[in-house]
Amino acid sequence: MSDKIRMAHGGGGEMTARLIEQVFYEALGGDFKEANDSAVLELPGGKTAFTTDSFVISPLFFPGGDIGKLAFCGTVNDLAAAGAQPVAISASFIIEEGMDIADLKRIATSLGDVSRETGIPVVAGDTKVVDKGSADKVFITTAGIGIIPEGIDYHPRNIRPGDKIIVSGTIGDHGYCITALREGIAIQSSVTSDCRPLHELVALLCPLAGDVHTVRDATRGGVGTVLNEWARQSGNGILIRETMLPVKDEVKGGCALLGFEPIYLANEGKMLFIVSYNKAEEALALLQSHSAGVDAAVIGEVTAGKPQVIMETEWGTRRVVPVPRGEILLRIC
Amino acid sequence: MSDKIRMAHGGGGEMTARLIEQVFYEALGGDFKEANDSAVLELPGGKTAFTTDSFVISPLFFPGGDIGKLAFCGTVNDLAAAGAQPVAISASFIIEEGMDIADLKRIATSLGDVSRETGIPVVAGDTKVVDKGSADKVFITTAGIGIIPEGIDYHPRNIRPGDKIIVSGTIGDHGYCITALREGIAIQSSVTSDCRPLHELVALLCPLAGDVHTVRDATRGGVGTVLNEWARQSGNGILIRETMLPVKDEVKGGCALLGFEPIYLANEGKMLFIVSYNKAEEALALLQSHSAGVDAAVIGEVTAGKPQVIMETEWGTRRVVPVPRGEILLRIC
Repeated sequence: MSDKIRMAHGGGGEMTARLIEQVFYEALGGDFKEANDSAVLELPGGKTAFTTDSFVISPLFFPGGDIGKLAFCGTVNDLAAAGAQPVAISASFIIEEGMDIADLKRIATSLGDVSRETGIPVVAGDTKVVDKGSADKVFITTAGIGIIPEGIDYHPRNIRPGDKIIVSGTIGDHGYCITALREGIAIQSSVTSDCRPLHELVALLCPLAGDVHTVRDATRGGVGTVLNEWARQSGNGILIRETMLPVKDEVKGGCALLGFEPIYLANEGKMLFIVSYNKAEEALALLQSHSAGVDAAVIGEVTAGKPQVIMETEWGTRRVVPVPRGEILLRIC
Repeated sequence: MSDKIRMAHGGGGEMTARLIEQVFYEALGGDFKEANDSAVLELPGGKTAFTTDSFVISPLFFPGGDIGKLAFCGTVNDLAAAGAQPVAISASFIIEEGMDIADLKRIATSLGDVSRETGIPVVAGDTKVVDKGSADKVFITTAGIGIIPEGIDYHPRNIRPGDKIIVSGTIGDHGYCITALREGIAIQSSVTSDCRPLHELVALLCPLAGDVHTVRDATRGGVGTVLNEWARQSGNGILIRETMLPVKDEVKGGCALLGFEPIYLANEGKMLFIVSYNKAEEALALLQSHSAGVDAAVIGEVTAGKPQVIMETEWGTRRVVPVPRGEILLRIC
């Protein structure tokens, strides 16, 4: 096999078949191989979550992960945020002519590895090749299906004044890691992307189902964007306290230097939860019992105020946390 | 709203929200709007098909369709080929900075139109923007879920010697149309892409379920590629007769001129069926009763021979129809 992607790898003929066999079958495993255009799943029925995301991150490889792991975790976490247990993932690759096949295989293997670790199979996929200059190495689009257990209904419409807001760990790690990499300060940085699957973490809260009002992973646009969406969707105010936000010291310092706010930085392994005030401590303890939630913290609450996000700063003043407007961090996921 | 896509449209903030609201909500409709990262579906359970495909066709607009319609139909047809009735589609857009928003809206509307016509909702999606030169205008990845009725099991393992091979209509129209467009002979051409949804057509054969052995849409790589895959997967030979292949005169003539074979040209609205020999006439009549199947024809049969595809030519000679090797037609879907 040649070591670079050629246009013929996307022609649908023998070269395509060989690429799929030599790169994707081995990397993604048996369920992927079995799929005959459509995968056939045996589902229990009932409430089922369905989601998709495209991944265009640059660079492809970064401390803590790569586009393959990210593409898998991103869709798993979207399903998890709906309260679903993921049962099947698809992965479709758009590849630029000239890409190193070794890099592609490394990415596919990374995606396959997290599939094997979680036991969530990649059951369907596709490969397209575009001419050099018509894409940037590789883009991956994943979609996923998950089963929502009886009694789970996570939706912003359930948000009530008094509810507590919990974040599952330190914020901004992924966004800071990628920015540090691009700004050339990665060599001194110990911050890696937090990219990881969170479905187990979310499942821990199943026993509190009726008191968990809504859940979201705080990816592109960060915690600040999710909170603003919740304020708008629920018509309630949101008050957070800066001192309660878990932020790594290096991220805090680096953000001050680079002119970013951690609250807008992308996360790829952090969930936000809105929980009844009287169950917040219990939820927090459950989250902290899991390796993905050791740094979980209550960061604020829902108020009966105007539908906006207010932050009480370190100095005790209050300011609005607006919806981010322009170019925050691009191609971050 | 500015008339070109800017990087900030992909930032996840206010610009992204406005783009989604102004372009995608209106184009794709209410189910898309309701989706909160994950769509929540109520499924009956049982055998469920799941598939995905990326679309990178160039040019974006062509006689008979555009990348939006194509992306919807492609995934619907993959579900249909599994015998499934499609219930939900997702659509994820990777957009190049500088793209005309009017073009994007036209494409999204075209996708939404076929969703409305078929009643199959687009329930989830995503939008990413990459910098100018890192993509070619827009790529769309769709995924889909479909329910497989009781008793339906379309799979190459069911193929038996003696089975008849049926194609649902004229072959090569999509591939020829795009090629003619690129070669600059489109102005004299009356051939349009056959891009259309085929789930209704396939559903007509439900009463013959046990005698319909396998089904595939003959997209990239054409009829020749599907037949070769079937020969390999089933371990049987396949014999087709050139005189029985439905090919438009213009496609036949144009192919001779351009050095293509219609059998390898992509279709976006044609299904191949393998049916028990004693039910083939009945299946054919059912297909011909539908507007998508008026030109359906039996084109050959499965044999006990070597696992390869043999064509009996117009002159009565026989030749192997190999798996296409190299660069056939690129970015055709």
